[in-house]
Amino acid sequence: MRHFGEIESVDVGTEFASRAELAASGIHRPTQAGISGSSTEGADSIVVSGGYEDDEDYGDYLIYGGQAGFDPNTKQQNEDAELSRGNLALVVSYNKGLPVRVTRGLGSTRQHTYRYDGLYLVERWWVDRGKSGFRIYRFALRKIDDKPISTPAGELPLPTSNEEPDKVESYTTRIIRDTLVSETVKEIHQHFCQTCSTRIERPGGAYAQAAYIRPLGRPHNGPDTVDNILCLCPNCHVLFDGWAFAIEDDGSLIGALNGSLFEKKDHTVNREYLRYHRRLYKAANN
Amino acid sequence: MRHFGEIESVDVGTEFASRAELAASGIHRPTQAGISGSSTEGADSIVVSGGYEDDEDYGDYLIYGGQAGFDPNTKQQNEDAELSRGNLALVVSYNKGLPVRVTRGLGSTRQHTYRYDGLYLVERWWVDRGKSGFRIYRFALRKIDDKPISTPAGELPLPTSNEEPDKVESYTTRIIRDTLVSETVKEIHQHFCQTCSTRIERPGGAYAQAAYIRPLGRPHNGPDTVDNILCLCPNCHVLFDGWAFAIEDDGSLIGALNGSLFEKKDHTVNREYLRYHRRLYKAANN
Repeated sequence: MRHFGEIESVDVGTEFASRAELAASGIHRPTQAGISGSSTEGADSIVVSGGYEDDEDYGDYLIYGGQAGFDPNTKQQNEDAELSRGNLALVVSYNKGLPVRVTRGLGSTRQHTYRYDGLYLVERWWVDRGKSGFRIYRFALRKIDDKPISTPAGELPLPTSNEEPDKVESYTTRIIRDTLVSETVKEIHQHFCQTCSTRIERPGGAYAQAAYIRPLGRPHNGPDTVDNILCLCPNCHVLFDGWAFAIEDDGSLIGALNGSLFEKKDHTVNREYLRYHRRLYKAANN
Repeated sequence: MRHFGEIESVDVGTEFASRAELAASGIHRPTQAGISGSSTEGADSIVVSGGYEDDEDYGDYLIYGGQAGFDPNTKQQNEDAELSRGNLALVVSYNKGLPVRVTRGLGSTRQHTYRYDGLYLVERWWVDRGKSGFRIYRFALRKIDDKPISTPAGELPLPTSNEEPDKVESYTTRIIRDTLVSETVKEIHQHFCQTCSTRIERPGGAYAQAAYIRPLGRPHNGPDTVDNILCLCPNCHVLFDGWAFAIEDDGSLIGALNGSLFEKKDHTVNREYLRYHRRLYKAANN
């Protein structure tokens, strides 16, 4: 059975001289593939080699380019990626909320050493065009253990983005940000779900979640404003973030849900953000 | 407007000589009450004084006794606590997922100094009988920032429980534990909710959550076994954990949901745990 989570005898920060050593430790069993996993169980581990043009590495937050066909000579992607094998395994990890071990390749593209950097969760996945023009799967992973990556200065792979790594938000920052703008939206809708009109009532008051339409954070960079937020019940939130439905400009729902968006005059949803989400929805369901 | 989250100029670990100094810093405005909050906005801050018989303090995890009437002479609780004022404010923080600032009183019961220990989330609340025999509200809070409490050895208030503080689980431990037993239960039910029969389908597969019937962790100490787990949709999970419904021994639902529990022959739910949850449900809805 595939093992998810920590490997008992291997600390975060442990370095390995080769993929063979890394495999022998149990951290990442395959000696070639970047993703260790299956389409039924999920992915238990990835290796981020730093050589891929579609990866973005911010340390505790990582955008990983998934699995695709590469030309062995030019090292360039030469076909569209599919929702199968490693990519499907990572989507299953997202669906199940499974932790993924992350190992980084350090050093030049030719001569790597490897460092185990701890456990991450797949926060989101989506389909995009890579720099090559071919279809790729992208996975945003966030570190969930509290063991810092102990990096000798300058050895962390450089972010492939030009933005500052220190802008990546902490878990706490995100929780607090959520409370300010999103509570306003929930109050306007009195905690009724804007897509299925469910209202979750518990002792002490009603409950709803704030769903960002154009996702926050890299690389989507949606704004934290009321016109980018929906008041949803937890079920519709899971469906909306997981590309099971989207919303047309006229408010009608497409995909898993029927009906149309409930709107209030003091909370208008920005159609630009609906289009952004719809484009990702369509790419994921292609 | 009430401010939730960090106070910009006050670091975790800052000490204050008095409640007046603590109030002036903005960390905890009331100079007497242990809970700062309102029944509409939620609670933004609590002070844990260490003198209360129903508190249990494990550092990053805290069971807080809520607000109750005390006899000023004997310092003993002398009436049943109610879901109002400070207690209701903490339940609202739970419902909204708001962060709560936690300040600890250090030193003897008579002469306190105060240390701001960072942001916590209310993970759960329930109603219990205190050591006095009167009704109390209890709140389990877990630290969510990544700023360690820098404690000179021996100065942390001692746990009032006899169990070892180091048994308190980390966030990561909990995530990994969840993946092993709970995936089995979800597979048995093919991700159909056992109470409302919803099945959340997304690209890449179905989605469900594992709900523990008798809660894990202190002080409930439910076991991590399949007979203590339900496969629920996110909506029913929120209702079940928030005391909006419970399940009778014959499987019929009481409270917010109608119908009865769907069971499979290879997954029998332990009636003892249903009774435990039902007792908490009834106390919360009293």
